Amino acid sequence: MELTQPLHKALQERPRATALVCGARRSDFATFVDRVARLASVLQSLGLAPGDRVGMLGLNSDRYVEYLYATWWAGGVINPVNIRWSPREVAYSLDDCDTRILLADGHFGAVAAAQRELSTSLKTLVHFGDGPAPEGMHDAEALMAHTAPMADARRGGADLAAVMYTGGTTGLPKGVMLSHGNLYVSQLCTNMAAARPDESVGLNMAPMFHVGGTGLTLQLMMRLCKQVIIPAFDELAVLQALQAERCSETFMVPTMLKRLIEHPRFAEFDTSSLQLVLYGAAPIDDALLLQALDKLPQARFCQLYGMTELSPVITALPAWCHASDQPAHRRRSAGRPVPIAQVRIVDAEGRPVPNGTVGEIAARGPMVMQGYWNKPGQTAEVLRDGWMHTGDGGRMDDDGFVYVVDRLKDMVVTGGENVYSAEVENAITQLPQVSMCAVVGVPDERWGERVHAVVVLRAGEVLTADDLIAHCRTQIAGYKCPRSVEFVDAIPLSPAGKMLKYKLREAHWAGRERRVG
Amino acid sequence: MELTQPLHKALQERPRATALVCGARRSDFATFVDRVARLASVLQSLGLAPGDRVGMLGLNSDRYVEYLYATWWAGGVINPVNIRWSPREVAYSLDDCDTRILLADGHFGAVAAAQRELSTSLKTLVHFGDGPAPEGMHDAEALMAHTAPMADARRGGADLAAVMYTGGTTGLPKGVMLSHGNLYVSQLCTNMAAARPDESVGLNMAPMFHVGGTGLTLQLMMRLCKQVIIPAFDELAVLQALQAERCSETFMVPTMLKRLIEHPRFAEFDTSSLQLVLYGAAPIDDALLLQALDKLPQARFCQLYGMTELSPVITALPAWCHASDQPAHRRRSAGRPVPIAQVRIVDAEGRPVPNGTVGEIAARGPMVMQGYWNKPGQTAEVLRDGWMHTGDGGRMDDDGFVYVVDRLKDMVVTGGENVYSAEVENAITQLPQVSMCAVVGVPDERWGERVHAVVVLRAGEVLTADDLIAHCRTQIAGYKCPRSVEFVDAIPLSPAGKMLKYKLREAHWAGRERRVG
Repeated sequence: MELTQPLHKALQERPRATALVCGARRSDFATFVDRVARLASVLQSLGLAPGDRVGMLGLNSDRYVEYLYATWWAGGVINPVNIRWSPREVAYSLDDCDTRILLADGHFGAVAAAQRELSTSLKTLVHFGDGPAPEGMHDAEALMAHTAPMADARRGGADLAAVMYTGGTTGLPKGVMLSHGNLYVSQLCTNMAAARPDESVGLNMAPMFHVGGTGLTLQLMMRLCKQVIIPAFDELAVLQALQAERCSETFMVPTMLKRLIEHPRFAEFDTSSLQLVLYGAAPIDDALLLQALDKLPQARFCQLYGMTELSPVITALPAWCHASDQPAHRRRSAGRPVPIAQVRIVDAEGRPVPNGTVGEIAARGPMVMQGYWNKPGQTAEVLRDGWMHTGDGGRMDDDGFVYVVDRLKDMVVTGGENVYSAEVENAITQLPQVSMCAVVGVPDERWGERVHAVVVLRAGEVLTADDLIAHCRTQIAGYKCPRSVEFVDAIPLSPAGKMLKYKLREAHWAGRERRVG
Repeated sequence: MELTQPLHKALQERPRATALVCGARRSDFATFVDRVARLASVLQSLGLAPGDRVGMLGLNSDRYVEYLYATWWAGGVINPVNIRWSPREVAYSLDDCDTRILLADGHFGAVAAAQRELSTSLKTLVHFGDGPAPEGMHDAEALMAHTAPMADARRGGADLAAVMYTGGTTGLPKGVMLSHGNLYVSQLCTNMAAARPDESVGLNMAPMFHVGGTGLTLQLMMRLCKQVIIPAFDELAVLQALQAERCSETFMVPTMLKRLIEHPRFAEFDTSSLQLVLYGAAPIDDALLLQALDKLPQARFCQLYGMTELSPVITALPAWCHASDQPAHRRRSAGRPVPIAQVRIVDAEGRPVPNGTVGEIAARGPMVMQGYWNKPGQTAEVLRDGWMHTGDGGRMDDDGFVYVVDRLKDMVVTGGENVYSAEVENAITQLPQVSMCAVVGVPDERWGERVHAVVVLRAGEVLTADDLIAHCRTQIAGYKCPRSVEFVDAIPLSPAGKMLKYKLREAHWAGRERRVG
């Protein structure tokens, strides 16, 4: 199980078919593989030894895909750097796993240059983008032009393939170690769990430094599909790509989907090629699903749930569960465990709980990470007897559907009762005036924490806190209803589209320590 | 990657869903897994140590599935015995890989009993069928009733899972060694390569001692599907199962499909549940495909090609290639390599040949066998640099489609020219009068071998040898046309539905040695 295997297949089976489309550039598989083998050779000449990490700071691009495969081709390990991080955070992630070579595209030259001062491990900076290299940086394109392609190092199986940093919402980032086998078998299974269109054309807009974006790239490459890459999510860029390249599948988070179909120019574009929308990070609410089915009537929808530590997908809610004749509550689930994943819900001692009981979601199978880089203690905390303990709260029903109720640490503990934010959020978003909401625990003299709702209203809509709370009382137990409501223009989102609840809490918790589950 | 993983998943996700249906018996997953864990315990108490082989002689049944999983659960290795073999051939396969425990159902008690005299390795005979055990055999059901279930031995990855005997058409059978990882990743990929119906119900009629039948069982189990098992192919049993259990997918060979849809009582049964027909061993001819699409209008067809040594599938011709608006010549191909398989065509020295050139089909990837049991020489002959050399002749076109032209050893060498039987057979089956045909080489004073056609006509049709040859001359080169034609009532088929050409050759070659490619 070698992640470079699809490249060898492509050379044999369809060398002249289009592999990558990025802006005005397009390359066929023969060109793509040639560039990968040359870039690998360049990395080797810059000192890369098998097993060494290679960092990349860049927007999504065809070059990003070349970086991934060239690192593997040379026998290295990818360390894709979060582009939202400050230079200091970047330095932390480079030093933590001793990354000596860092590639950067033109957008991140300054952040990369700053690493010379900040990072102790970094030895070599490489410009891999348009235009000439900034001073002090090697120029990948220039070197590739004069370097012969190298032979594939052919690492695979249990060999380390990636160190991906995660956990940015709380605490110090941790380097998740994934092997070739982890990523290979997981993308194979994800391709299967969400049945793909024939001869698909993929559209990749999810950030590639995140396992969601990288995963989609690998899934498409395994099927030797053309993939269209846009630098970052942008409604018009997505609409243009769908129309121009006849893309048939993509991955996005529900907030992106919402922005896309509500875009004022949506109807101007031909989006009829889109057959499959994979979505993750959150369930799709019924109002959005109905709207999406109206705007994209030919598309099937499939939810994927997982985390970096799980390569990443462990459950899928398949297209048929989105049909209007299926139980509505299932659409709020994350679906059923995929074939390679054993999933169970456990209590604080790691013991399985009965169906219907909320606990921690745990998973076991060939997609479980090798551990956190250089953090045996934190690895041992989450990896026990082969089970990865996700830190997500959830329950399973009698049909095997998994409901993610909340990040355990997002749970509100009020008056001794556990309140799962998602349950309250589901009640609030039933209100037609509400566009988005987040429920967090904030300090309260009487209750320890109180349930606090942060709400974004739809344009032109009006709603009072009292009306919102009164509605909740008709839906959920009194102690679960918000005791305070804050109306805001927007909720901060992570690059992966997850709500950054810690930012909402910050103002309330300044100077105090929050007790977490 | 443990083959028993689906059983643990099923206990968690859907213990009360139906797992197996066999005649009047049906068991849910909880019962199935309990029986597996008890039978495993029985095998252990009979002396099975991890890695030991366990044989089974039986028709397809729910018990056959229990045997497979119980052997793995106990840490053993399956050795499913070819039920068409003579007692002496059975003994050969048991002794070759030192199988000490043999299970047999009621149909094969005599063959099993004969092993006491014939086999030197066999120590323990177990009756695993209806009714009481014959004298001298342990009674599995009786022992299971008084044995506590054991814990799963949890073998996986590179651990040996199966020794399956192959090569029955020429030479001594060879024990193909497949690991848990081989079978796991291959069935995952086959599930993906032929997109399956939602919440499928499988119908298994292919012999389970063959990797085709075992593979379908594993594919269905990975998705926790209900599977309906019929003892052996029988048109009425298939029709009754389709109607009664609403089966949605199955695997058969084209000759079975033909017999099924041409059965006089076909129209009496409701076959509308059948959504996917996987087929293998041979391409489907257009006449049969049209007929099948007419009789089973809701079904998609997907061809799979492979061999035991490849766990078994390496190429798939997906449903969309069967559409009438797709090039007809592709329907005569075996499809494209599946995601886990690198496939190439090589010459006699193992060097890749250009597209369009006929050579030997070779494959590489995580599905390649570990080798032949105790036959390092024969293993080294076929496994070179990670490539399995299939012995099948074929070519690849510029779009990556693989055309299997013939078993290399079935090639006819006439006047120094190589003639691939399949090419001649394709020309002959274009004639509307022809139901089936096989082309073989027979000895010829002048040409060394001459092209000989064995032909079955459709009921009521008339055709002369001269007319058949005249038709061929309009289609293929003169030296490829048959020089002799034999009209017969039926062509002998293997249990897997492959034509047994060696039987057709026997009479002609009696007393001579045939020179093979």
